[in-house]
Amino acid sequence: MIDNLQLNAEGRLKHFLSIEGLPKSLLTEILDIAESFVGIGDHQIKKVPLLRGKTIVNLFFENSTRTRTTFELAAKRLSADVLSMSISTSSTSKGESLLDTIRNLEAMFVDMFVVRHAISGAAHFIAQQTAPHISVINAGDGQHAHPTQAMLDMFTIRQIKKDFSTIRVAIIGDILHSRVARSQIQALNTLGAAEVRVIAPKTLLPAHVESLGVNVSHNLTEGLKDIDVIIMLRLQKERMTSALLPSESEYFKCFGLTEAKLKLAKPDAIVMHPGPINRGVEIDSKVADGPQSVILKQVSNGIAIRMAIMALAMQKQGIN
Amino acid sequence: MIDNLQLNAEGRLKHFLSIEGLPKSLLTEILDIAESFVGIGDHQIKKVPLLRGKTIVNLFFENSTRTRTTFELAAKRLSADVLSMSISTSSTSKGESLLDTIRNLEAMFVDMFVVRHAISGAAHFIAQQTAPHISVINAGDGQHAHPTQAMLDMFTIRQIKKDFSTIRVAIIGDILHSRVARSQIQALNTLGAAEVRVIAPKTLLPAHVESLGVNVSHNLTEGLKDIDVIIMLRLQKERMTSALLPSESEYFKCFGLTEAKLKLAKPDAIVMHPGPINRGVEIDSKVADGPQSVILKQVSNGIAIRMAIMALAMQKQGIN
Amino acid sequence: MIDNLQLNAEGRLKHFLSIEGLPKSLLTEILDIAESFVGIGDHQIKKVPLLRGKTIVNLFFENSTRTRTTFELAAKRLSADVLSMSISTSSTSKGESLLDTIRNLEAMFVDMFVVRHAISGAAHFIAQQTAPHISVINAGDGQHAHPTQAMLDMFTIRQIKKDFSTIRVAIIGDILHSRVARSQIQALNTLGAAEVRVIAPKTLLPAHVESLGVNVSHNLTEGLKDIDVIIMLRLQKERMTSALLPSESEYFKCFGLTEAKLKLAKPDAIVMHPGPINRGVEIDSKVADGPQSVILKQVSNGIAIRMAIMALAMQKQGIN
Repeated sequence: MIDNLQLNAEGRLKHFLSIEGLPKSLLTEILDIAESFVGIGDHQIKKVPLLRGKTIVNLFFENSTRTRTTFELAAKRLSADVLSMSISTSSTSKGESLLDTIRNLEAMFVDMFVVRHAISGAAHFIAQQTAPHISVINAGDGQHAHPTQAMLDMFTIRQIKKDFSTIRVAIIGDILHSRVARSQIQALNTLGAAEVRVIAPKTLLPAHVESLGVNVSHNLTEGLKDIDVIIMLRLQKERMTSALLPSESEYFKCFGLTEAKLKLAKPDAIVMHPGPINRGVEIDSKVADGPQSVILKQVSNGIAIRMAIMALAMQKQGIN
Repeated sequence: MIDNLQLNAEGRLKHFLSIEGLPKSLLTEILDIAESFVGIGDHQIKKVPLLRGKTIVNLFFENSTRTRTTFELAAKRLSADVLSMSISTSSTSKGESLLDTIRNLEAMFVDMFVVRHAISGAAHFIAQQTAPHISVINAGDGQHAHPTQAMLDMFTIRQIKKDFSTIRVAIIGDILHSRVARSQIQALNTLGAAEVRVIAPKTLLPAHVESLGVNVSHNLTEGLKDIDVIIMLRLQKERMTSALLPSESEYFKCFGLTEAKLKLAKPDAIVMHPGPINRGVEIDSKVADGPQSVILKQVSNGIAIRMAIMALAMQKQGIN
Repeated sequence: MIDNLQLNAEGRLKHFLSIEGLPKSLLTEILDIAESFVGIGDHQIKKVPLLRGKTIVNLFFENSTRTRTTFELAAKRLSADVLSMSISTSSTSKGESLLDTIRNLEAMFVDMFVVRHAISGAAHFIAQQTAPHISVINAGDGQHAHPTQAMLDMFTIRQIKKDFSTIRVAIIGDILHSRVARSQIQALNTLGAAEVRVIAPKTLLPAHVESLGVNVSHNLTEGLKDIDVIIMLRLQKERMTSALLPSESEYFKCFGLTEAKLKLAKPDAIVMHPGPINRGVEIDSKVADGPQSVILKQVSNGIAIRMAIMALAMQKQGIN
């Protein structure tokens, strides 16, 4: 069971690998702790000494400026030492296995791995294999999960909409390949959202998508009705070259979010996007930069959420 | 007006983009503050807590070990957290625009961008677009300006020659393509140097160069007469392959600084170079390593000047 | 003499370039200091303020995740500022010489260079040329030396076997190309090991290898008799493509360490490897991960030893 791996014997957070298997109370605790960090960006001195003397290793097997940067900043603001390793340039090119790399880093007395990997389950595998005192945070694994992104989205939604039980959320775009969407759906359902709706062409939806606990629409115009929160997904340009989609302009015409389309949702609906955005592909610039967009607020909240998750995962070691 | 952008309402430094438009009093203030940092290299502990808890982002769109390293060291010695981003490896390769990258970093509560870019005006553009609390330092933009280099040169000149009003300065080499030369000429004229002379072949001088406030010579032998300060420019080897210059050895024969040529300047003339030097192309090793050379002193002063400029630009936020 | 360069006038450690020329008392002092750092990995806060405000530059001309990472962690745990420079991306690509790069870094008031270079003698050359207040640590130069690796091996041996004078050590594999083996042999002989034996095919041994103070065997089965400490060397796969070796499986059959072979050594023999290991090439996984293996202990000890050497080399500047 994945929840056994993520929680220690007392039910405290040890690894943060997936929203799946985490109780509502824990997700709420993370959101509450993040609340206490969210003002830190406005302080003259943006640091707290919670993780002073701890060593956090960013293990990025897949490139990501935004995610790596927010984790690095979050760690530094907790006063930890951060070691960023881009693994394509490491000993693995000398033929060393992932497991040997992990064993070696463990032996150097590190405290946490933040893992980004193109293979689904990579962070999970590392958490299973690593020494008991080390925490693993999943910073995105294949098409499986991106739970810290989902949590910063939940934080942003709660900041504005207060109560999950009354909101209807639409997730729009490439659900099939999106680890972000998977984690968002799980988080919204755990936190008790009134409805989670996915809106996408059939070719970009997984089989049996309803079993994830969502309603399905293939039509953006109809699908946005009564929606409080619109989450746009990034369209990977690679999908275009495969047979999944006709063309960028065709996609934008059907599923791109424009000002006209936005009017179909509730008047106070907010627009979210995990970034980086493709202007004019899945979202019009007027919407992305408009008054209902909270896209940059998501980025800011990303620091606070990652600080909260890292601090909480370390607490099991007697920090705080 | 560029000066409006660089100064805040009270006339204090906010961005440092160009020498142009900055008053003599501000340049002198920077030199005076740098004075207080210049001894820090000799201390057992080389740090001051002026920018503790601040986050400085090195945005280097163009590679430069020396400049990036001095900015990073200067920031660390001010106790700031530094995030170095080499932008070719970032989200911009996923098609994200420069402006979206800036917006995202802003949202992470950073305090300063140090920008190096191959396009003239890039730092200026970022300063125009960025959030009001963020300072932008130009670390070299295209062929436009390299103002921190010019300031460390001014600092080095003042250290040795004391008074700008009595000195004649020769800038020698590829004036046409040099952002360093542009900034030096502006700084020397603002600080009231007795004469700024440029010495170069016609193909390496901009049209109407006199309008910058310089005298012009095309002959090194004649041009060095009465000179107190010799500033050699780096000759980009790329220029050779274009039609601008005959050959390396031909260039060295006419415009390379040798011990014999150096004797044509004043006996106590100093020799400067922004580095990295091309030994045997624009300067002979005997001169570069000789008693009149202050090239390495320039490097040392680069740390103090950058500390001063960063601390001063942050002061507008209520630091100090 | 190399020892003159490594020691200052009072006989204290200044540079750490090679085991050769260092007295037994100094090696023992390093091991003793490392002892005091070895527990730091278990502390809540893993830092000591010994080198606070010092700037250490990692000059890695050759890629090495493991060695660079341990030096970086060691420096951070001593509270130093660390600047990691991968030199292929630096000004040397603009044609700047190594010496000019060094001169420039010196001028930025750095305190220590940690040097990794593919050319034998590179760290030595830098130590000869650099300013008197700067210490140089050799992190591996060509096929010449890797003295910090040898010292962490000595530390690991002493931890377990206590007394060098009673132990027989076998070094197995590619002695010819191994800087690690050279440094290990010197350290073991200086510390008074009862016997140092090398076991390798003739093609992987230097000419006149006995002159290094070792016994020689070409047969693993015979060679392991009475051995207390087995040091396996990494087999560079490149050697296979040259004419030096028949094939990987042939090599493993003759010189690979298996559980059966391990039984030929003393029952309490320990197995060491500098890493990264080639499983199934020079060592069987059952041995590498078995109860007699101390390979990961070596990695842990690498932090403590590097902290000790850096702290000791800085002591000459009046630290401590």
